[in-house]
Amino acid sequence: MSELIKIHLSEDEIPRQWYNLAADFEKPMPPPVDPEGNPIGPDALAPVFPMNLIEQEMSQERWIDIPEEVLGILKIWRPTPLYRARRLEEALGTPAKIYYKNEGVSPPGSHKPNTAVAQAYFNREFGITRLTTETGAGQWGSALSFACKLIGIQCKVFMVRISFDQKPFRKMMMRVWGGECVPSPNMDTQVGRSILEKDPDTPGSLGIAISEALEEAVPDPKARYSLGSVLNHVMLHQTIIGLEAQKQMEKLGENPDVIIGCAGGGSNFAGLSFPFICDKIHGKDIRIVATEPAACPTLTKAKYRYDSGDVAMMTPLLPMHSLGHTYVPPPIHAGGLRYHGMAPMVSHAMNEGLIEAEAIHQLECYEGALQWAHTEGFIPAPETSHAIAQAIREARRAKEEGKERVILMNWSGHGLMDLTAYEAYLNGELSDHDLPDEMLERYAASMDGLPMP
Amino acid sequence: MSELIKIHLSEDEIPRQWYNLAADFEKPMPPPVDPEGNPIGPDALAPVFPMNLIEQEMSQERWIDIPEEVLGILKIWRPTPLYRARRLEEALGTPAKIYYKNEGVSPPGSHKPNTAVAQAYFNREFGITRLTTETGAGQWGSALSFACKLIGIQCKVFMVRISFDQKPFRKMMMRVWGGECVPSPNMDTQVGRSILEKDPDTPGSLGIAISEALEEAVPDPKARYSLGSVLNHVMLHQTIIGLEAQKQMEKLGENPDVIIGCAGGGSNFAGLSFPFICDKIHGKDIRIVATEPAACPTLTKAKYRYDSGDVAMMTPLLPMHSLGHTYVPPPIHAGGLRYHGMAPMVSHAMNEGLIEAEAIHQLECYEGALQWAHTEGFIPAPETSHAIAQAIREARRAKEEGKERVILMNWSGHGLMDLTAYEAYLNGELSDHDLPDEMLERYAASMDGLPMP
Repeated sequence: MSELIKIHLSEDEIPRQWYNLAADFEKPMPPPVDPEGNPIGPDALAPVFPMNLIEQEMSQERWIDIPEEVLGILKIWRPTPLYRARRLEEALGTPAKIYYKNEGVSPPGSHKPNTAVAQAYFNREFGITRLTTETGAGQWGSALSFACKLIGIQCKVFMVRISFDQKPFRKMMMRVWGGECVPSPNMDTQVGRSILEKDPDTPGSLGIAISEALEEAVPDPKARYSLGSVLNHVMLHQTIIGLEAQKQMEKLGENPDVIIGCAGGGSNFAGLSFPFICDKIHGKDIRIVATEPAACPTLTKAKYRYDSGDVAMMTPLLPMHSLGHTYVPPPIHAGGLRYHGMAPMVSHAMNEGLIEAEAIHQLECYEGALQWAHTEGFIPAPETSHAIAQAIREARRAKEEGKERVILMNWSGHGLMDLTAYEAYLNGELSDHDLPDEMLERYAASMDGLPMP
Repeated sequence: MSELIKIHLSEDEIPRQWYNLAADFEKPMPPPVDPEGNPIGPDALAPVFPMNLIEQEMSQERWIDIPEEVLGILKIWRPTPLYRARRLEEALGTPAKIYYKNEGVSPPGSHKPNTAVAQAYFNREFGITRLTTETGAGQWGSALSFACKLIGIQCKVFMVRISFDQKPFRKMMMRVWGGECVPSPNMDTQVGRSILEKDPDTPGSLGIAISEALEEAVPDPKARYSLGSVLNHVMLHQTIIGLEAQKQMEKLGENPDVIIGCAGGGSNFAGLSFPFICDKIHGKDIRIVATEPAACPTLTKAKYRYDSGDVAMMTPLLPMHSLGHTYVPPPIHAGGLRYHGMAPMVSHAMNEGLIEAEAIHQLECYEGALQWAHTEGFIPAPETSHAIAQAIREARRAKEEGKERVILMNWSGHGLMDLTAYEAYLNGELSDHDLPDEMLERYAASMDGLPMP
């Protein structure tokens, strides 16, 4: 085992610009629209986001500077190390090389703070003193609380009540970083009050939490709303992952044949893959695979439509692969992948044939996650286990085909806050979820009557 | 913030030998003895530890080779980064520079696997197929489970029942790595059965758990017992921390004026400080400070005595500062520092005037830990917060004295599994614990009649 296991970049080598894939799409992306199909302009988004982020959201510039202060905070954990999973390769007996980018080294433990820090910064620069957001299991809420504390603004997180009650640790993490975390629905908002009056014991949902976070932010001129995935500027901020990985692969003299990321809203997948999609557009032979849960098959089974980002249809309509904004995924533990839609930029890349997608059931993912923990050591998040299962599939194919393939995956976060999920798996309490076509069609019907991209 | 925040060594620069401070003590350490005061020879330890580790335990060699296979596993997270805490310095307005060695980047999240991997390896090389150990809150049990899985032997952990019931996450972590974790006392052992017969609802104790782990290992020729702190070979394995830090400080062109580590059993403190104690013995002007909880003031208030490592007096008598083997510390959350004794090597260094010690109450530690999370980002373990509080004290002294002092501390682990402790602190539920002298005297009386070093 004297060969290299990981490679670090020095802080001086951190990328100083984000990469905007929108500049390289051959066919431009359709714009967000209102329910009548009219394109949404920047002003319509101004009550929700600061104008500097709206500009990024709509930008066609290929490169966008990362502010020095943002870089200073990112350097707490970036550049992140690129690892070679030698022990896993050996266990699989594969001729493939498996590299992974370890985004679990950030203080909140995932890739999420890459955009949280940027968003907190641009809001503060715009004069905003308070951000609101929603969170499911708490990964995003803790990342934004962390970012707001270091940037020096306030943060209020509406956390889906069932997670608030059952998963208290992310909530405590938010509190350590000074974030205010309240259960959603909540009596603080009109939306919350009306839901609680009808159903005091509701478990809540991401859709409700988004509505509450929006309701709290919009009337306050010093507050804005923040989203941890889906939007173009979020994808943009995550590209620092792939830009670093390109430098690291270059230092190793390696050309990846396959790029893998798990995909829920799309941000960690985009973060690693977009710079490599740029390479692909410019002629490199490279497969780029988004892996999603079979229980939430947005790219593999859902139509490309205009759909709302939330269940209450408070957001503009976005062009995306969507299972329908009323879709309620089966209760898989990979909470970060349980989203009905897919980021418009990722969806567009899919339509343009730049990426492909596979869906994997959760038992295969947990099996892969355990094999990972037993060979590579680190315990992956349930979301990350989807990328791992995909990498194992690719490594086995390489073995069957006798090809020395170079695989690069995004290890999006650690699973130290998700140990109850492993416990359930080891107890044999988890199962795979079959999705009858009629069920998917029923949910898709919620998009009937919406404009088409 | 364009200045350097952290420095990595490449994997090639990992130290290839451990440093043994025993070789450099001017006055030799007293040997372990039996209750009659007769020195214990290697053979007496053979039922408990494999002979290759017993040799390390008694070695006077200055440098001991780290096996290639151990290095291969350590490289999963080592060399660990050395950080400069610039944001904390700024918040304190101190002219001091605060550097810290981040041991929280290991898969189990602390410095513990540095010795766990080595112990699992040497046991397997000696033909052992199963290790037993005890654990309190679970930090050590999870590190040993991790190490045994990667080395390829079995691991059984007796976890103090109250922690087993109240802190399930470390237990789940052990299970993910294939460790068998059972509550202690347990019906599997004679010691456990006899205690449970008398008191079925006992919360258990580390003393009981050690007795059970020993009882299970000793009669099985293929099993041995493993300890995560206190012993000489554990200190030895941890010196890789300080050896790396020396290289990193040299690259930065810095000479540390003050070295800080928190101290419970002594292993993380020893790990960072012993190579610098070597420098001090050879003439360098350097202060080396062990920081302990005021609730467990082993170095600051306890006598240097022969005492047993466990409450049931099953271990040999070790020469150490000890509060008495019956000592039950107040319920502070820094579980890893709640030990009645201090490693013989650390105790000897104290007696020889090579190190000094301070005791800090827990509220000051949590205050420091929060200031850390709000500036440096990472959430420290409650144990680590003692080193942080000490570093803050030293930085403030430097400010008062107008001295640009270089402080180096061991950031022994993250606090992601300890968030309930932060919650209790933020809820105002924690308090400091005063220890009346008469109470300490009462516990110290348990050592009456034992031989003196």
